[in-house]
Amino acid sequence: MEYLKNRIIKDSTVKDNNIIMVDSFLNHQLDIKLLNKIGKEFYERFKDKNINKILTIEASGIAIAAITAQYFDVDVVFAKKTLSTNLDDNTYESKVNSYTKNETYTVRVAKKFINKQDKILIIDDFLANGKALEGLIDIIDQANAKVEGIGIVIEKGFQKGGDIIREKGLDLESLVIIDGVKDGSIIFRE
Amino acid sequence: MEYLKNRIIKDSTVKDNNIIMVDSFLNHQLDIKLLNKIGKEFYERFKDKNINKILTIEASGIAIAAITAQYFDVDVVFAKKTLSTNLDDNTYESKVNSYTKNETYTVRVAKKFINKQDKILIIDDFLANGKALEGLIDIIDQANAKVEGIGIVIEKGFQKGGDIIREKGLDLESLVIIDGVKDGSIIFRE
Repeated sequence: MEYLKNRIIKDSTVKDNNIIMVDSFLNHQLDIKLLNKIGKEFYERFKDKNINKILTIEASGIAIAAITAQYFDVDVVFAKKTLSTNLDDNTYESKVNSYTKNETYTVRVAKKFINKQDKILIIDDFLANGKALEGLIDIIDQANAKVEGIGIVIEKGFQKGGDIIREKGLDLESLVIIDGVKDGSIIFRE
Repeated sequence: MEYLKNRIIKDSTVKDNNIIMVDSFLNHQLDIKLLNKIGKEFYERFKDKNINKILTIEASGIAIAAITAQYFDVDVVFAKKTLSTNLDDNTYESKVNSYTKNETYTVRVAKKFINKQDKILIIDDFLANGKALEGLIDIIDQANAKVEGIGIVIEKGFQKGGDIIREKGLDLESLVIIDGVKDGSIIFRE
């Protein structure tokens, strides 16, 4: 997705030669026009999959999933990372190791919101080591629902998540794949 | 907002005679069509305010803010509740006591995303004791920006947050105000 690649070149920064900061448009400040282009692109890539639900994970995935859901005309469910009195007691759970936060947490989805008939599109902003994504896939598996596709905005191709997910035979589409950072510059996969 | 009130009557449940569970359409599973109606309603109420940015707080506010932002044609910034390597080091911070999670946390917004020229609409799903909202207002004050309006989907009129915010002279619009729960039924303010 050339438009997104150009936006990353223009507005991202690299921190510690590894963390790609896209906080000015994707995961802290949100450029809603860009999210609409992203949503439309995901729709083009997965429109033949009969998606009836989008699953994402709080917090950065939510806006992308919500905007994307407009093109599919489906509901979104977002997995929760913390317990709350607002969460139903009856949940699917999966443990996740976070790379960016250096901790283990539990993701939860209320059982009533994933059924075995569901054909689910997973949406998230980043794919790095794939741990969060594996947690979401695990939850969908527990519900005997189907992962019809996975739409990622930015895949870090130099971490192993993408390979792990593709080896499972899942339909993973990353709008941009970054193969590395060299001297502060981002190297995109062609 | 009659449509929303009817949806709450139809699809919410009451837990512990106090917690109003709207997780099937507003803050866990998200009915995007409903969010569009909510966004359009916020636009009608605040369209004359020259809003140039929407501020919300993770996680439940994000989808509502993102969908609403389409009507105003502005960016969204969401305040973060946890530290992450993805967060800029230079942030405005405010401490918040959470009622639903029974803990104190710090909300943060990168300083570069709020400027003193900003005319900000705050959006959130619930207003109860108003602590999260006061944190967001505090951050906007620190940036010398202006709170032009506050759009809340559901205000719990039996908690004091709404009164506290209105006493500050701020333009707070709640789409639905709930005055209490009696025998498991929700009492709406007319």
